[in-house]
Amino acid sequence: MAYSGDPISAHELLFKPAHSIIDQSLHSTMGATTTNGDGFGIGWYSDVAPGPGCFKSIEPAWNDVNLREVAARIRTPLMFAHVRAATGTPIQRSNCHPFRHDNWLWMHNGAIREFHTVKRELTMAVDPTLYPDIEGSTDSETLFFLALTFGLTDDPFTAVARAIGFVETVGHRNGVEFPFQGTIATSDGTSTWAFRYSSEGKSRTLFFSTAVETLHKTHPDLAILQEVGAEGRLIVSEPLGDLPGAWQEVPESAAGVVRPGDDLLQPFEPIR
Amino acid sequence: MAYSGDPISAHELLFKPAHSIIDQSLHSTMGATTTNGDGFGIGWYSDVAPGPGCFKSIEPAWNDVNLREVAARIRTPLMFAHVRAATGTPIQRSNCHPFRHDNWLWMHNGAIREFHTVKRELTMAVDPTLYPDIEGSTDSETLFFLALTFGLTDDPFTAVARAIGFVETVGHRNGVEFPFQGTIATSDGTSTWAFRYSSEGKSRTLFFSTAVETLHKTHPDLAILQEVGAEGRLIVSEPLGDLPGAWQEVPESAAGVVRPGDDLLQPFEPIR
Amino acid sequence: MAYSGDPISAHELLFKPAHSIIDQSLHSTMGATTTNGDGFGIGWYSDVAPGPGCFKSIEPAWNDVNLREVAARIRTPLMFAHVRAATGTPIQRSNCHPFRHDNWLWMHNGAIREFHTVKRELTMAVDPTLYPDIEGSTDSETLFFLALTFGLTDDPFTAVARAIGFVETVGHRNGVEFPFQGTIATSDGTSTWAFRYSSEGKSRTLFFSTAVETLHKTHPDLAILQEVGAEGRLIVSEPLGDLPGAWQEVPESAAGVVRPGDDLLQPFEPIR
Amino acid sequence: MAYSGDPISAHELLFKPAHSIIDQSLHSTMGATTTNGDGFGIGWYSDVAPGPGCFKSIEPAWNDVNLREVAARIRTPLMFAHVRAATGTPIQRSNCHPFRHDNWLWMHNGAIREFHTVKRELTMAVDPTLYPDIEGSTDSETLFFLALTFGLTDDPFTAVARAIGFVETVGHRNGVEFPFQGTIATSDGTSTWAFRYSSEGKSRTLFFSTAVETLHKTHPDLAILQEVGAEGRLIVSEPLGDLPGAWQEVPESAAGVVRPGDDLLQPFEPIR
Repeated sequence: MAYSGDPISAHELLFKPAHSIIDQSLHSTMGATTTNGDGFGIGWYSDVAPGPGCFKSIEPAWNDVNLREVAARIRTPLMFAHVRAATGTPIQRSNCHPFRHDNWLWMHNGAIREFHTVKRELTMAVDPTLYPDIEGSTDSETLFFLALTFGLTDDPFTAVARAIGFVETVGHRNGVEFPFQGTIATSDGTSTWAFRYSSEGKSRTLFFSTAVETLHKTHPDLAILQEVGAEGRLIVSEPLGDLPGAWQEVPESAAGVVRPGDDLLQPFEPIR
Repeated sequence: MAYSGDPISAHELLFKPAHSIIDQSLHSTMGATTTNGDGFGIGWYSDVAPGPGCFKSIEPAWNDVNLREVAARIRTPLMFAHVRAATGTPIQRSNCHPFRHDNWLWMHNGAIREFHTVKRELTMAVDPTLYPDIEGSTDSETLFFLALTFGLTDDPFTAVARAIGFVETVGHRNGVEFPFQGTIATSDGTSTWAFRYSSEGKSRTLFFSTAVETLHKTHPDLAILQEVGAEGRLIVSEPLGDLPGAWQEVPESAAGVVRPGDDLLQPFEPIR
Repeated sequence: MAYSGDPISAHELLFKPAHSIIDQSLHSTMGATTTNGDGFGIGWYSDVAPGPGCFKSIEPAWNDVNLREVAARIRTPLMFAHVRAATGTPIQRSNCHPFRHDNWLWMHNGAIREFHTVKRELTMAVDPTLYPDIEGSTDSETLFFLALTFGLTDDPFTAVARAIGFVETVGHRNGVEFPFQGTIATSDGTSTWAFRYSSEGKSRTLFFSTAVETLHKTHPDLAILQEVGAEGRLIVSEPLGDLPGAWQEVPESAAGVVRPGDDLLQPFEPIR
Repeated sequence: MAYSGDPISAHELLFKPAHSIIDQSLHSTMGATTTNGDGFGIGWYSDVAPGPGCFKSIEPAWNDVNLREVAARIRTPLMFAHVRAATGTPIQRSNCHPFRHDNWLWMHNGAIREFHTVKRELTMAVDPTLYPDIEGSTDSETLFFLALTFGLTDDPFTAVARAIGFVETVGHRNGVEFPFQGTIATSDGTSTWAFRYSSEGKSRTLFFSTAVETLHKTHPDLAILQEVGAEGRLIVSEPLGDLPGAWQEVPESAAGVVRPGDDLLQPFEPIR
């Protein structure tokens, strides 16, 4: 889940909504696995320190007392939250999302298939100056570093397209039919880019919230809307709550950006 | 789950069966909660050391690498295994089952209702010499120490009946309609006692395995039966696997004992 | 360590000073044990939420990445920080300091001797309405709840004196020669009380920082002093750094309070 | 610490001796750091399962209850035990020693200097079929996989010499004056090889135990010697206990093997 907008309490975002992300870690209805109990993480930007902070843990999100304590005391204009269902790599903090590099955060729901087979080729393509910054062993973090190598900090749309394109090229070379699956969110603290794509054309779900002014008119009494403000946006894997008209689905093979001023939603295709 | 019989690899018991207890921690079909990810524990007797050992952890059972490593190298004639769904007390090793006192192990699936209200009265009734041995803060451990106070080590049937009777008395005194729910398993390393009872008469499920000789005849090729032997018994909350005729349900308000020679199954009623 | 004063970054307090509390967890020079690696905790007040938050963990303080991440993004006018050297009770989050009740925080460096023997008498003296709020199994938390029972929220000096007095009475009754040892810090979010006392008259050390205006004059260039401000006070077990004249020792059998306006330092004696 | 000989209780080895490895994790006298509290691990061979088991954890060794529980119930003829003082890579189970590949175990006390700079060159030299088996991010594990690449399973002396030689070559190419420091122990379950070498010629200490028959004669009453038997050998970083004549130091730039029949001790030099 990615939030951007007026500063909001992390506790509001994580624990308040019906079918919150914490609830999703226990009872996911749309994810690939019902329970996502292999760790969680939040990354948040604030004015108290430069760069985003990351609180990540291998405890199931629904149990972590420190998360509740900390979340209630964070006010942030931009926050990522993730619950992990591991796809084969160890359960450890360094394998939890979001991943961070400089002031960028990155989350990925999905997988690079047959990662064990293609891992060496992929990591060897990471820029040598970036390679030693890889902390963990996940496919998601490797993809992040490929995107950084291909210029994420200059042009995220192109960089992610090239990264996924490279993953597909290497995958096919190694006999993997559908190398990539998933949704991605990444931010530099001001704008948030989101991607929905899979090699097989059947991707994990991705939703973004309707503009709040619209919701204000249709649901004037809904508490969380008071806090969120006109620029407030949520990008989620599964809708938080059942509010009709509050969520719009990101189409297959699409990418978008949420930022002050105009947002953008456009088709997405890997670059080989 | 409680196993007794010929020495068996803990790995066989924990990971092998279809719908094993590890699988149940993720996808329980009969328990009160679907996921039991609030910690797990195994207790096992062996000839390598006096008294049972306990390996308990707050990691979800399906993720714990050390559990797999250790279980594969334990051979034991009597083992308890438990996955926890917490009912309000903190997630910490000292609140994981099985609990141990001297050479006794204890597990409880269920709850003492309104425990926060009745806790002081219950703990005050624990024998003063035993009280300081209480390590955690669960209702299950408190019940164990009440049973010890009422003579568990001499006569488990009576001691547990008195313990639950006391819980019901105190509960009713404090306006709790149905003070007790659950199944209990306890062992001294030779015999294993099991109980199924609830104040409301609708208790968590409990099954025991059919005599292995019977299963040998009906299913001569089933691998795990080779290991288990004639005295092999399993007591479980939910059947491990779908083998027809392999599991018999323990009735409501009943208690039994599994031991070398004759087992026993009889009605159970709290003593007030 | 207890800080109060102008809002300051928790990171400044925890990680910056020479011989910081994090460093003390590794290389304590004055504590009873050289290494205090059995867990740590911070409690902090802020305007983002009512009541203090607590981040506590059993990881050694010098290793916890989440602590660094969170501390760098907390600004607080009043914070407690503690590293634990366990005295016999389990290593678990609920046994880490600071302890919290409503808006009060509590830390204790030291021990109630022969706690296993006197535990039941002490916990039975805790007010029945408070008893079920005891989360862990430490002597320090039990003392906190005795102090609450004796009116901590109305008159901390008297309540702590009565609590320690009771501990000594019960201890002597059970043949314990020197029942109590230690220093205590407790706060309601506005004022912080500190105590230094032991039955044997040789207590753990306790220091408070010299008024900042004095230090400004003698050390005009010292960075941390810029942040701290005129009301800034630190109460510590061991001095943070070697700054001459920056630390004054609290005498044996003494208690004090730090608060806006006048502070206080006076003799302390248990009340039997 | 590496033990081989008659089957012995892991508990005897880990907790019994004066200045045991558990004690060394708290109060190391000879290591580079006083406290080694960044995780621990044991690897042990037994007849209960093929291949060695590994119990590793980021909890400080002196606190881990499960370690005590498990160790008391392991009987093993060959065991590795390690306490970690991290040299810059994350604290996680996959970065704890011993490392394992097939039936081989590996431990390393020391460091590859400037690892962040040389990491990519080193990992790129690992055999592509082995590369995806690297689980963590430590220099020690990378060195293990280099040794495997250079034929550890055929000729450990040569493989380790080539691995360290390669590390020195790459290090020098990158301006690192003294690329390698440390002692290494590795085993296939029957023999145990040990190495003591550093680029600067001042290596971490390494000791092996005197033949037990000798000790039997000089110390006929020492309990642990009863258990150990004629083939019993201990290889340690710091002596366990003060027994005069019980420990012999491995010289600088030397390597040896302990195995049934004749042991071997010879000079060691990297192969470039």
